[in-house]
Amino acid sequence: MEKELFVTLLRDRHFKAVRTILNAMNPVDTAALLAELEDKELALAFRLIPKEEAADVFANMNNSMQTYLVEMFTEKELKELLDDLYMDDTVDILEELPANLVVRILESVGQQKRNMINVLLNYPDDSAGSIMTTEYVELRQHMTVAESMTHIKKTGIHKETIYTCYVTDKRKLIGIVTAKDLMTADDNVQIKDLMETEIIAVHTHTDQEEVAKMFGKYDLIALPVLDAEDLMVGIVTFDDAMDVMVEEATEDITKMAAMNPSEKPYFETSVFNHAKNRIPWLLILMLSATITGQIITKYEDAFAVLPLLVSFIPMLMDTGGNCGSQSSTLVIRGIALDEIHFKDLFRVVFKEFRISLIVGVVLALANGLRIFFMYHDMNMALVIALSLVATIIIAKLIGCILPLLAKKVGLDPAIMAAPLITTLVDTCSIIIYFTIATKLFQL
Amino acid sequence: MEKELFVTLLRDRHFKAVRTILNAMNPVDTAALLAELEDKELALAFRLIPKEEAADVFANMNNSMQTYLVEMFTEKELKELLDDLYMDDTVDILEELPANLVVRILESVGQQKRNMINVLLNYPDDSAGSIMTTEYVELRQHMTVAESMTHIKKTGIHKETIYTCYVTDKRKLIGIVTAKDLMTADDNVQIKDLMETEIIAVHTHTDQEEVAKMFGKYDLIALPVLDAEDLMVGIVTFDDAMDVMVEEATEDITKMAAMNPSEKPYFETSVFNHAKNRIPWLLILMLSATITGQIITKYEDAFAVLPLLVSFIPMLMDTGGNCGSQSSTLVIRGIALDEIHFKDLFRVVFKEFRISLIVGVVLALANGLRIFFMYHDMNMALVIALSLVATIIIAKLIGCILPLLAKKVGLDPAIMAAPLITTLVDTCSIIIYFTIATKLFQL
Repeated sequence: MEKELFVTLLRDRHFKAVRTILNAMNPVDTAALLAELEDKELALAFRLIPKEEAADVFANMNNSMQTYLVEMFTEKELKELLDDLYMDDTVDILEELPANLVVRILESVGQQKRNMINVLLNYPDDSAGSIMTTEYVELRQHMTVAESMTHIKKTGIHKETIYTCYVTDKRKLIGIVTAKDLMTADDNVQIKDLMETEIIAVHTHTDQEEVAKMFGKYDLIALPVLDAEDLMVGIVTFDDAMDVMVEEATEDITKMAAMNPSEKPYFETSVFNHAKNRIPWLLILMLSATITGQIITKYEDAFAVLPLLVSFIPMLMDTGGNCGSQSSTLVIRGIALDEIHFKDLFRVVFKEFRISLIVGVVLALANGLRIFFMYHDMNMALVIALSLVATIIIAKLIGCILPLLAKKVGLDPAIMAAPLITTLVDTCSIIIYFTIATKLFQL
Repeated sequence: MEKELFVTLLRDRHFKAVRTILNAMNPVDTAALLAELEDKELALAFRLIPKEEAADVFANMNNSMQTYLVEMFTEKELKELLDDLYMDDTVDILEELPANLVVRILESVGQQKRNMINVLLNYPDDSAGSIMTTEYVELRQHMTVAESMTHIKKTGIHKETIYTCYVTDKRKLIGIVTAKDLMTADDNVQIKDLMETEIIAVHTHTDQEEVAKMFGKYDLIALPVLDAEDLMVGIVTFDDAMDVMVEEATEDITKMAAMNPSEKPYFETSVFNHAKNRIPWLLILMLSATITGQIITKYEDAFAVLPLLVSFIPMLMDTGGNCGSQSSTLVIRGIALDEIHFKDLFRVVFKEFRISLIVGVVLALANGLRIFFMYHDMNMALVIALSLVATIIIAKLIGCILPLLAKKVGLDPAIMAAPLITTLVDTCSIIIYFTIATKLFQL
């Protein structure tokens, strides 16, 4: 295996061979390989990475590796690393480092960069400001294409993207020029004749989920970020938007399974934190499920006479819960993708009602026939069939209405998912079932 | 509202004003605005869109609008549109159009383009080949930077991206040069000295989910696609990768709620198709839930003596289901994000076991105390507390093991989500509960 070979070469101090391997690797893969090393080997291997790739590898490491390396670095090494790191990566790393190392880093950068970092660190979590970078290409409207290309050649190497350039006037963003425009236009065309003035931009406080959605919608490579006075302060690049999309989908999925989302991957979250994220909703749902239990006790007499009644409870509860969570899942996802809005409430309800009729009849037939042939009890078959249809209709309506209502009142629709819907639908299905049963069997 | 104003201007034939509005809009927004128009207005408005944006607007329209317009177009209009559409968009559109219109389109493009379209249409759904485009910038290794820039200026306008250029030799991909490299290097540097030879590429049959993951991992703008003989045939661009990511997350979420995923958005899927996607899993789960019911009937005597026992069934079933789906959700998502692999099985099991101990004890205490104070029945409190702990441990273990096993045997882990886990855990929790209850109450 590559890893074992690498470790052997490193331990035996074949530094030239190690350098050759590291030289040929992509920074992302190098970071993954280094993650498998012991701390001491890590420090050694990191110093063998080609200088121009070191910052990129560092940005791709996990938090504990970064912490260890920053502790190990000399002043000079730290300074060099910080010079090469993009501003948004620097801020991401600082947010996760222990306080003493943050102080050390802030002391080793210049005054101007320190001020900039402090501004960026102060933007709210999950805002455009917190994920933006301040390194972008600025052009002026009276420049020609040739002048712009020269300007980019001089300043572009350390910009995170040079593919979208921003035309500013007194820090106000007045136009956007793509590198494609520059590369395919004639040298003497002026920027002001080339630039796009219909600008798509966000503000520093825009939620990162909104930002990611705009990337998806408009197929952007970068998006300018404006401050409260509409002056340009940074850009968000598409790679950060992709990360946000994955993060937000994970968050939604986690919430839909009745957990508080964790900021870290599964294995990096401690057992205690996993438990802490899961217990609150379990407690709430457990206590509300006891209400269903209380209702059952009201029908004690019924199932004392006809114990078979109890055996259909799991099937009814599960089917109701599944039907409800099908609807709520589709609506929650539709809301997240901007395909369903509160104004569509009646359209959704009408659609789900028709779907639940089809689903209800099919399931009622299947189960009713099964019961009739198994128990030869027409009445029981009828009770179950009717209960199923009614439960399915109510489950699907609750499932589609609640997420939209949550959205309307400013709650996260994702909490209106399977677990909560199931608990609510349980109560309804039990009431429907025993009401129909006591009527039909005259209990 | 903008829409009403727009329609009024269009109906009153103020074409100049309409043109000005359309001119200032982003193609994505134009497509959204046009979606609100009637068919006749749509055809009229589309013809007023600036020529250079028409293809982009068309590519952003929904299927029914595209169908209508293709039917309306003259030969000349169709030809112009097809000339301006990128190859991947053309293929996407063709995949959704009725057969007679596909024939019409294939007849109006040249022989070479027709052959290319036919090749692309034949790649499997969800493969890199089906989402790639064949328009990319090719360079030669002996070219200089200046020659390359001239080449791009001549040929680049109609390439989907010019930001990653591909250095080929007899159609074999030997290196990659970014536009950033070109723009910041000296004019007389040769491409072979500038190009990156560590190439990250996929094959035409690579699954699109894999492709999207590589974009996320390596922060790419474009990814080259090779055929079976390793010759370069196209590129996938980051905007298509983003769409795939959203699509795949939706598919996973839909499967996790026990539905077959729909290829179209919620409102564009018919009531009948919605029902068809939902019924199969509901039937399977409903019939397996009856097993739980059968087991309950075995304990008829127990709850005939102690009817209170029945009232705790919903609480136990729901809590077990919720605990199980919490674990399965995290594991399924971890697998999708490549954070959890089958080799981690024992690590995951051990972690979930410790989590379930904490969660179990907390929930058992909460509920045991509640029951003790409500019913003053120490035995009942003990039965419930013990059942809860046992159910939670088993639920979390089933929840984390099944998705990993599914992955191992080549099934989609997403089907091992809440609904299936709930049904399985139900059976276990009922058996545990009645076993403990009959022992402790000596029923």
